Amino acid sequence: MLRVARIMKCLTSSKAAALDAELMAPSGGFSIDQLMELAGLSVAQAVYKYDKSLAQGKQVLVLVGPGNNGGDGLVAARHLCHLGAKPVIYYPKRTDRPLFNGLVTQLHNLDIKFLDDVNKSTFDSSAHVIDSLFGFSFKPPIREPFPKVIELLKETKTPTTSVDIPSSWDVDRGPEDDNAFQPSSLVSLTAPKGASRHLLPSTRHFLGGRFVSKHIADKYDLEVPAYEGLDHIVELTQNNKEAQI
Amino acid sequence: MLRVARIMKCLTSSKAAALDAELMAPSGGFSIDQLMELAGLSVAQAVYKYDKSLAQGKQVLVLVGPGNNGGDGLVAARHLCHLGAKPVIYYPKRTDRPLFNGLVTQLHNLDIKFLDDVNKSTFDSSAHVIDSLFGFSFKPPIREPFPKVIELLKETKTPTTSVDIPSSWDVDRGPEDDNAFQPSSLVSLTAPKGASRHLLPSTRHFLGGRFVSKHIADKYDLEVPAYEGLDHIVELTQNNKEAQI
Repeated sequence: MLRVARIMKCLTSSKAAALDAELMAPSGGFSIDQLMELAGLSVAQAVYKYDKSLAQGKQVLVLVGPGNNGGDGLVAARHLCHLGAKPVIYYPKRTDRPLFNGLVTQLHNLDIKFLDDVNKSTFDSSAHVIDSLFGFSFKPPIREPFPKVIELLKETKTPTTSVDIPSSWDVDRGPEDDNAFQPSSLVSLTAPKGASRHLLPSTRHFLGGRFVSKHIADKYDLEVPAYEGLDHIVELTQNNKEAQI
Repeated sequence: MLRVARIMKCLTSSKAAALDAELMAPSGGFSIDQLMELAGLSVAQAVYKYDKSLAQGKQVLVLVGPGNNGGDGLVAARHLCHLGAKPVIYYPKRTDRPLFNGLVTQLHNLDIKFLDDVNKSTFDSSAHVIDSLFGFSFKPPIREPFPKVIELLKETKTPTTSVDIPSSWDVDRGPEDDNAFQPSSLVSLTAPKGASRHLLPSTRHFLGGRFVSKHIADKYDLEVPAYEGLDHIVELTQNNKEAQI
């Protein structure tokens, strides 16, 4: 697998919000449906690359937050189901908008189970956990019922993949204390945020967003890595920056 | 590459329209943006599988019709650009809807050229041609300026990929005469239509639509083949039905 430098240029939370708005402005031409579809596809591909054996019917717990980060998780769950995994969803604070209601309907039509609650045994019985609770617009405090979920993420031995930001982390500054949740893998969307500089050396780091134009990359000073073949993600590593970028 | 039986169950044009409507009804939960994104991604992947060398900056001419089939082509052009090809677009009858205007804007932002006209030399100077003129709701007659384009498709030596239906063919009955346009490759979306039974033996046939639920497959009596890895397309062949389905 192609791996490129982990130490990439990062987007601040405010720049990430501006970039997102620009993509969806008339001058950008994207709808949120399109961007969320591509984001969720990237997440599903990263989780598959992390552990291909998930496709053999293994349970993937998808933790879905109330905003767009959660929507990315819902799309990822659909794609993982079609890849052969068995997603189960925890989505306690639902967004009552057509896009989100539609994503839930799609999952119901695939007979994907929605859980009323999660606990240690839900995590233990899953082969992988996707953290799509909070994204680049996260601001503390963490509201109910999510504090308990963050504790479960901290304690679990099950591999975890975070979408864009490890939930509970400050988007720009990273974990607030030494006891913070540490994902096994992070999928940065469009570009890494400052928080990603604080990943453990053992954490795998993927970048998704194979739709960034040169104009956007230049304007926001982004590095666009070389994706391989048909992949919608590329894995970033710490030690071969010059070779690949 | 995994190849499955070409002789699959086919959808009639009326069933295809009903299935499309059902996916986008509240009970299906899909938006047209999502379905078109996945359709265009499938087409781009099929074209890439047909000729990986296109990703080395080769020109791909995308012929875009006035309806949703054309929208699939616009999405495919974007993905092919990110794969490394150089799409050029002929889109003479534009649909003035936000989705379509947005797709055009996305292509402008990638510096993709829109042509005012096409002729033999446009075809000759392209390494591949995508026919996304007419889809499963096509009814004759072929309106201006498309008759000339169909003639160019008939005559060209450049490899051609048709989206869902070879343009000018009857959706259920296939080509109207022995002199009809014959694509080099067809990408059937969701399920093959009756026209696909009339492909030449040499024509490659891909199926895209890795989002079909078991409920939909059962209701419409569709065969859902095994997609390989992360692929959004699967190639169908004529001679190993029992082995793979």
